[in-house]
Amino acid sequence: MVETYVFGHKSPDSDSITSSLVMTNLEHELGNADAKAYRLGNINKETEFILNYLGMEAPELLEGVEDGADVILVDHNSPAESVDNLENANILKVVDHHKLALETSYPLFLRFEPVGCTETILCKLYEENGVEITKEIATLMLSAIISDTLLLKSPTTTEDDKLAVAKLAEIAGIDYEEYGLEMLKAGTDLSSFSIDEILALDAKQIDFKDVKSIVNQVNTADISDVMAMKDDLEEGMSKIIEEEDLDLFMLLITDIVNSNSQVIALGKSACLVEKAYGVKLEDNTVLLEGVVSRKKQVVPIMTENA
Amino acid sequence: MVETYVFGHKSPDSDSITSSLVMTNLEHELGNADAKAYRLGNINKETEFILNYLGMEAPELLEGVEDGADVILVDHNSPAESVDNLENANILKVVDHHKLALETSYPLFLRFEPVGCTETILCKLYEENGVEITKEIATLMLSAIISDTLLLKSPTTTEDDKLAVAKLAEIAGIDYEEYGLEMLKAGTDLSSFSIDEILALDAKQIDFKDVKSIVNQVNTADISDVMAMKDDLEEGMSKIIEEEDLDLFMLLITDIVNSNSQVIALGKSACLVEKAYGVKLEDNTVLLEGVVSRKKQVVPIMTENA
Repeated sequence: MVETYVFGHKSPDSDSITSSLVMTNLEHELGNADAKAYRLGNINKETEFILNYLGMEAPELLEGVEDGADVILVDHNSPAESVDNLENANILKVVDHHKLALETSYPLFLRFEPVGCTETILCKLYEENGVEITKEIATLMLSAIISDTLLLKSPTTTEDDKLAVAKLAEIAGIDYEEYGLEMLKAGTDLSSFSIDEILALDAKQIDFKDVKSIVNQVNTADISDVMAMKDDLEEGMSKIIEEEDLDLFMLLITDIVNSNSQVIALGKSACLVEKAYGVKLEDNTVLLEGVVSRKKQVVPIMTENA
Repeated sequence: MVETYVFGHKSPDSDSITSSLVMTNLEHELGNADAKAYRLGNINKETEFILNYLGMEAPELLEGVEDGADVILVDHNSPAESVDNLENANILKVVDHHKLALETSYPLFLRFEPVGCTETILCKLYEENGVEITKEIATLMLSAIISDTLLLKSPTTTEDDKLAVAKLAEIAGIDYEEYGLEMLKAGTDLSSFSIDEILALDAKQIDFKDVKSIVNQVNTADISDVMAMKDDLEEGMSKIIEEEDLDLFMLLITDIVNSNSQVIALGKSACLVEKAYGVKLEDNTVLLEGVVSRKKQVVPIMTENA
């Protein structure tokens, strides 16, 4: 049996984990029995809530793939965020909603849409292929869309996401607002994590032109809870900056109730945050009002100003 | 009115021209009235045959786009093969069947499938969106699939291409084999072209790792007709190699009846052809038996051996 590895990005969020499960199910339904879901890192608290709600196991951890392995990428396409040895793998398909950062020497199946969540695209793929969306699959999809769009309030939210949520909530038989708030709050529980773990939870390596950066996002219901750890967080960030030779480490502490983000920025390019948002960092930190989306409100603006 | 520019690659073939027309029609049907088809170069004889058959005009020539222009790419994604100033345009969508060679700083709509022709993907998009395929649209789509797959005989041909041809031939009311052979033969008529024009007809800039190359493909019903011009072709190729500082110029003279290609290779990396195919160039030329597809039988093999 030649396995097809299906996985989302490193430091997986709920979209990456659920999409790997949902895409694997779709592959099975379309006749590829060898598809298997994997994860490239630890499950976060929010994803744990979703899997517990459904009584499901997390996908197996994948450390790397052998040369020539068949892989399907969901919720990412950048090799920097993907599995080790991706450059020698055979990418069959990519389903994603991020900017394009992949090159191949062969044609492949790509399905990208500028929507809020990969699951919104997968929902369409099920429909187009006439594959039934079960209650379990609907719950996985719905949870990820709520997560990525912060209950349809993030500026990344599109009409397609709203339509998908309405449809999936009905199939799942879930009051999505009530379920969603509970799920998002579960995701803000940092009590069991060390500082190093918090800094790795949803960290993405992103280069703003030649500014080598990590942008990490931590959701919270109360910014001051996280800011109480500021000294320890900064110490951890400084260590990572040195180890990875970074120009910038941005930590976004996002208030999911009021839709703002407190940013802590360290590194020799921290001034780029001031330039990009027209703000002044005080003691390495500033509140970015209305900023909740790394993809829509951080990456393009930081890249433009780099 | 903010126009949406829809176009295929430079040195356009029938897929690039027909796909720009068909995609524009789809955009109109989906509510984007501002979409307009363009071409990035001269129409070839085969495309002329198709447009004449339908009594249609060729799309307008596009020299470049302004900063921030909305564009839709069909049948290509590599900036090297696209419009001037693409890096400052806003790419809304890409529908393509080639390898991936594009990066963006923003998410967008991508629909890539490893099929023989862009029109096969567009045919699916019409279906998925419930848009009627008229007789004219079906003829455009059908013609391009016949062109790209050399009447479904090229190794790039997939089941999806065959299904599309069967469906489209019925809508168009065309005997596709008879029509297709006539169309392909029309495309081999080089009588009105200068040597420079022949060398630009279907030329693609492709880098095999760091080997800077142009690979040009000319279809013919009789290889010896084209080889009669060998000295003049080589003189023109040498001039382009010097002007563009190329490492390699490969001219594929493809026999569409017997499915072989005579290759003429010039430049300091011409030996790469010998290495890749295990052949010996004699007087800069060799017959590559069974080779008809640049994408499937040239690019990956040359890249692997570079």
